[in-house]
Amino acid sequence: MTQTISDQFKPVVGILMGSDSDFDIMKAATTVLDDFAVPYEVSVISAHRTPHDLETYATSAQERGLKIIIAGAGGAAHLPGVTAALTLLPVIGVPVFSKKLSGLDSLYSIVQMPAGIPVATVGIDNARNAALLALQMLALSDEVLMQAIKAFRLGLAEESRLKNENIKHKLRAKS
Amino acid sequence: MTQTISDQFKPVVGILMGSDSDFDIMKAATTVLDDFAVPYEVSVISAHRTPHDLETYATSAQERGLKIIIAGAGGAAHLPGVTAALTLLPVIGVPVFSKKLSGLDSLYSIVQMPAGIPVATVGIDNARNAALLALQMLALSDEVLMQAIKAFRLGLAEESRLKNENIKHKLRAKS
Amino acid sequence: MTQTISDQFKPVVGILMGSDSDFDIMKAATTVLDDFAVPYEVSVISAHRTPHDLETYATSAQERGLKIIIAGAGGAAHLPGVTAALTLLPVIGVPVFSKKLSGLDSLYSIVQMPAGIPVATVGIDNARNAALLALQMLALSDEVLMQAIKAFRLGLAEESRLKNENIKHKLRAKS
Amino acid sequence: MTQTISDQFKPVVGILMGSDSDFDIMKAATTVLDDFAVPYEVSVISAHRTPHDLETYATSAQERGLKIIIAGAGGAAHLPGVTAALTLLPVIGVPVFSKKLSGLDSLYSIVQMPAGIPVATVGIDNARNAALLALQMLALSDEVLMQAIKAFRLGLAEESRLKNENIKHKLRAKS
Amino acid sequence: MTQTISDQFKPVVGILMGSDSDFDIMKAATTVLDDFAVPYEVSVISAHRTPHDLETYATSAQERGLKIIIAGAGGAAHLPGVTAALTLLPVIGVPVFSKKLSGLDSLYSIVQMPAGIPVATVGIDNARNAALLALQMLALSDEVLMQAIKAFRLGLAEESRLKNENIKHKLRAKS
Amino acid sequence: MTQTISDQFKPVVGILMGSDSDFDIMKAATTVLDDFAVPYEVSVISAHRTPHDLETYATSAQERGLKIIIAGAGGAAHLPGVTAALTLLPVIGVPVFSKKLSGLDSLYSIVQMPAGIPVATVGIDNARNAALLALQMLALSDEVLMQAIKAFRLGLAEESRLKNENIKHKLRAKS
Amino acid sequence: MTQTISDQFKPVVGILMGSDSDFDIMKAATTVLDDFAVPYEVSVISAHRTPHDLETYATSAQERGLKIIIAGAGGAAHLPGVTAALTLLPVIGVPVFSKKLSGLDSLYSIVQMPAGIPVATVGIDNARNAALLALQMLALSDEVLMQAIKAFRLGLAEESRLKNENIKHKLRAKS
Amino acid sequence: MTQTISDQFKPVVGILMGSDSDFDIMKAATTVLDDFAVPYEVSVISAHRTPHDLETYATSAQERGLKIIIAGAGGAAHLPGVTAALTLLPVIGVPVFSKKLSGLDSLYSIVQMPAGIPVATVGIDNARNAALLALQMLALSDEVLMQAIKAFRLGLAEESRLKNENIKHKLRAKS
Repeated sequence: MTQTISDQFKPVVGILMGSDSDFDIMKAATTVLDDFAVPYEVSVISAHRTPHDLETYATSAQERGLKIIIAGAGGAAHLPGVTAALTLLPVIGVPVFSKKLSGLDSLYSIVQMPAGIPVATVGIDNARNAALLALQMLALSDEVLMQAIKAFRLGLAEESRLKNENIKHKLRAKS
Repeated sequence: MTQTISDQFKPVVGILMGSDSDFDIMKAATTVLDDFAVPYEVSVISAHRTPHDLETYATSAQERGLKIIIAGAGGAAHLPGVTAALTLLPVIGVPVFSKKLSGLDSLYSIVQMPAGIPVATVGIDNARNAALLALQMLALSDEVLMQAIKAFRLGLAEESRLKNENIKHKLRAKS
Repeated sequence: MTQTISDQFKPVVGILMGSDSDFDIMKAATTVLDDFAVPYEVSVISAHRTPHDLETYATSAQERGLKIIIAGAGGAAHLPGVTAALTLLPVIGVPVFSKKLSGLDSLYSIVQMPAGIPVATVGIDNARNAALLALQMLALSDEVLMQAIKAFRLGLAEESRLKNENIKHKLRAKS
Repeated sequence: MTQTISDQFKPVVGILMGSDSDFDIMKAATTVLDDFAVPYEVSVISAHRTPHDLETYATSAQERGLKIIIAGAGGAAHLPGVTAALTLLPVIGVPVFSKKLSGLDSLYSIVQMPAGIPVATVGIDNARNAALLALQMLALSDEVLMQAIKAFRLGLAEESRLKNENIKHKLRAKS
Repeated sequence: MTQTISDQFKPVVGILMGSDSDFDIMKAATTVLDDFAVPYEVSVISAHRTPHDLETYATSAQERGLKIIIAGAGGAAHLPGVTAALTLLPVIGVPVFSKKLSGLDSLYSIVQMPAGIPVATVGIDNARNAALLALQMLALSDEVLMQAIKAFRLGLAEESRLKNENIKHKLRAKS
Repeated sequence: MTQTISDQFKPVVGILMGSDSDFDIMKAATTVLDDFAVPYEVSVISAHRTPHDLETYATSAQERGLKIIIAGAGGAAHLPGVTAALTLLPVIGVPVFSKKLSGLDSLYSIVQMPAGIPVATVGIDNARNAALLALQMLALSDEVLMQAIKAFRLGLAEESRLKNENIKHKLRAKS
Repeated sequence: MTQTISDQFKPVVGILMGSDSDFDIMKAATTVLDDFAVPYEVSVISAHRTPHDLETYATSAQERGLKIIIAGAGGAAHLPGVTAALTLLPVIGVPVFSKKLSGLDSLYSIVQMPAGIPVATVGIDNARNAALLALQMLALSDEVLMQAIKAFRLGLAEESRLKNENIKHKLRAKS
Repeated sequence: MTQTISDQFKPVVGILMGSDSDFDIMKAATTVLDDFAVPYEVSVISAHRTPHDLETYATSAQERGLKIIIAGAGGAAHLPGVTAALTLLPVIGVPVFSKKLSGLDSLYSIVQMPAGIPVATVGIDNARNAALLALQMLALSDEVLMQAIKAFRLGLAEESRLKNENIKHKLRAKS
């Protein structure tokens, strides 16, 4: 898959997480970006343990060439919102599930941002959708990427249709 | 405020709602876009009462020049997700509060999209943030708009600092 | 068990699910319909990945001879509601449990439909009840089926009474 | 609007509620049935205060000519489920909102029926949808009624389109 | 342990459950009653699968010599409430946990009874407390039983104090 | 209404609340006890503000002649549970609604008692049912009271039937 | 009331809120501190609109003489947690109620902090308790303040006892 | 690590839990206090099974030299609140998770204390943060401890930065 955005080597998407334990979830975002050959960087920065590092990261993100930041966090998940407060770039938040409150704490503390500073929130643990959303934003000014997303959607539909065929086949075989 | 995107007259943001009763909430998005002079269109289309109109709207959105769709809905709020399934454009979902389940039904049925088709969800009733998020997406390829957002953020900070001064002044006066 | 409705070979119940992973839950509906010899079809169609297939399916359901559609989905479960919007047939929704939000997202996004387009919602993962409800609807114009349901209910009661006997027996044996 | 089912005078839908205070919500069901000229009866019978009356009502419903029972209740809302246990007719449950638990108690105690005895649950306070669902069930064997529902759906769509026109008109006027 | 109530052989407590699968939880009540030598009976009767058996059971409970009924159920847990509607005896409800809604459906549909027909609800899965509550009620007119409860409480305290000693001992050993 | 228990003048039911603001809810219990001529006392004692008073009250309750304690509280509602820990008498807990968490905090902190110390919990704000439950407990050894409860239940049923007649009458008048 | 801590004029408690609209709730903390003559300062600083101001405030708090920070916020309430990350002083968090999610978003995003950076959370809207908790912390090294808290508690108990007398008096008068 | 507070041998922190089964969670607090060489004691005292022991413990805590009490409990978690009512010392509450209600019952019954008697609540199962919060309170009058906390925070940041390096290294190695 070739595209204009991947002609550059500098990361355009920053994937951020509060703890390396979140990488199990967030790696799904890297897989998508790899598939679309969009350069990205991955960082573990905690809004609470390394707040100054986060400030450095977020305030310099734009000049370093990043276009979009994907931030995943669990519990009192402040990372996406605090990042959004420190940059003009769109920030996509991924609420990470924890057994304690079923991800409700993560979801509410990411999505319920005050008027003025939005975070684009996706479903609990849905890092894959975070990356796809980032691609859709980038594709607004990248026709090659837009075509790649179109192809991806067609593939998604084909995959679904195949499952339909398989289940019908399996059931016919049984009867 | 002048900017490249507003040099065109065709809407670049589509604001969609399931019922005209949602306009009380969604008009906050129009105010923001008016402030930034970004052309938009407003439509009332129901995913359930007029599904074919929604299909026509969503599948033609891109070729009609729209860049981003903001969709607000309450209850079993399918509008943002179904729209996202029918277009490659980024879709921003606004969960509209209802007394029945405090907006939980709206929030969950918008944010918990399956892998493959994301909706960028903002807080309950937070149409203002939906518009600001749309601006941030558009600004990725529009430097003038990016500067306008920067100015807006500075204004937001100033407004907050003024409140700080006022409350300190009020309390000093009282003591 | 013989009945008028099963004299025909064309499916009268359509069982629909958004993903083949939902079949583990939805197969309970097929078991019930098999027991009552009511012909059905099973399809995997996603409201989000294959929206046009869903439109084709739902808008043609009635003329293809279907009487009732049972739709199961999890997360932002739009499948039952979107199907209901595209057909005049009764649609029965099965909220599929997921660990993330304990099935609350599935339940709320299925049951909280706007006025005008109802979905007959059953309990979380309760595909068996979805099929029984479908049978009750069909039995309104099929006396043989009504008698079969009556017999089924008597069996259910007998099974319950047997459990009562067993537990009393077991406890007497212990004392 | 004329239809076969309304040629008879005996009620085919029983509307049941646990308390007369629920009538504020349940009357929306009577309005729909009046519009479609489907004969119905309204009864206040409590699963807890008059359990024997409920048994008499439910066990005789079918022979009295009822086809469908719509039952609305709030709090520990046992009425729909207990009714469903006492009749073979489809029972549609309407969870009635109360301030105490936002209708969650009503919803959960209606929808989460055990396998074997389904209740077709609609949204909180959505008695209108309960009646529409009843009509869809009746229309399975009543082509005139099916046509009436079709016309109703077209009207619903027209009404929605009119709102779309109005809001566009209003916004153009303003600008 | 000897007591007046146990001089009789007829059961004074009826332990009721909707399904034999609930016995894993409800047996904790039998253990307590065994310890206090209070005669009881155990029955599996479903409010939904065998409603007439429940009516027979509940309306005859008092004349058969029962003093208190303990009813456990899960999901749309109507058993305690429907039983309470059919007898003047105190009914104690045990909400049985299920993975689907974490026992919330059981709890809400047991505790939120309408004014007029109370159910004495204990914690989720807490059949042991249901039995202890039954003993406290019986002890109001049975001084021997009251003394036995007093002894039980002292034992409970001793057991707790022993745990305190043990943990202090264990920690001292470690340091 | 005459009954053995009311021949004595000393209170047999203690109605307890954490704050006098709870009396708006708890007075419904006094009305019921007045109707049945069962003597009671009302006290405002806080588990947190006057813990020693609560200890004095609860540990002396039995010797002072009380048979049952009804305790109402809101928020972190410890009053019923702490009272239950300090007496052998049955304690009935009334979760008092507050806007903050819709009474969930009250309900959970009353009903979820640890094994060993039960609280008989009734519905949110349902002080009326608390009193009726107390009457049912007292009636276990008071046949006159049992008959009074029977009469009350018949009255409840009559009242419900009257509502049924009224609504049918009203609807017939309208048509 | 005199005390050592109030001999100094510099604030020892910092009261922080994200928006001046939170002052309606937070002023209850100022009332308590006024009553105890503990000097404090009030500031409106937003974690999202003025993140750099918050950093300046929090990192300089200790050297400016503050001992404790009370931070109140609603929605995605990051203020207390982000402040706690930027200072070694104890931070007390007040979840501010909002109609949207009944304060659940505020509560969860304040209390569920990751291991390493605690926030001492009090009840929803309970700014009064936040101030009392601050006093208890300060009193650990201020015997005069400890005595003042003791007196306050006695007053609290007296007030509660007075309510008890009043309600008993009122009820006696009525009978 | 040396510090003034550890020069004394008498415990300054009391760690309290309702059941020894809570020690699995609460031991994380002992680890932190061991690391900072702050003397503490551990006790198992139940608010419900041994209420008089709790009273003795809490009312004597201050004179025995304790400065802070950390109390952990699950379910209807009254231990922290009842302790707080019986002492002037700051009480830190740890809501212990249970499968039944995901820790919601524990959290709500600890954090929602009435005005007058605060409990400093930390996250569900977060005993580690409870100990860190206790240290921050003690450090207000113990400069050596304050420096130790500062060092701990720097270590926390270094640990987080190391994880950042590791993940970047791992990803570079992969590509």
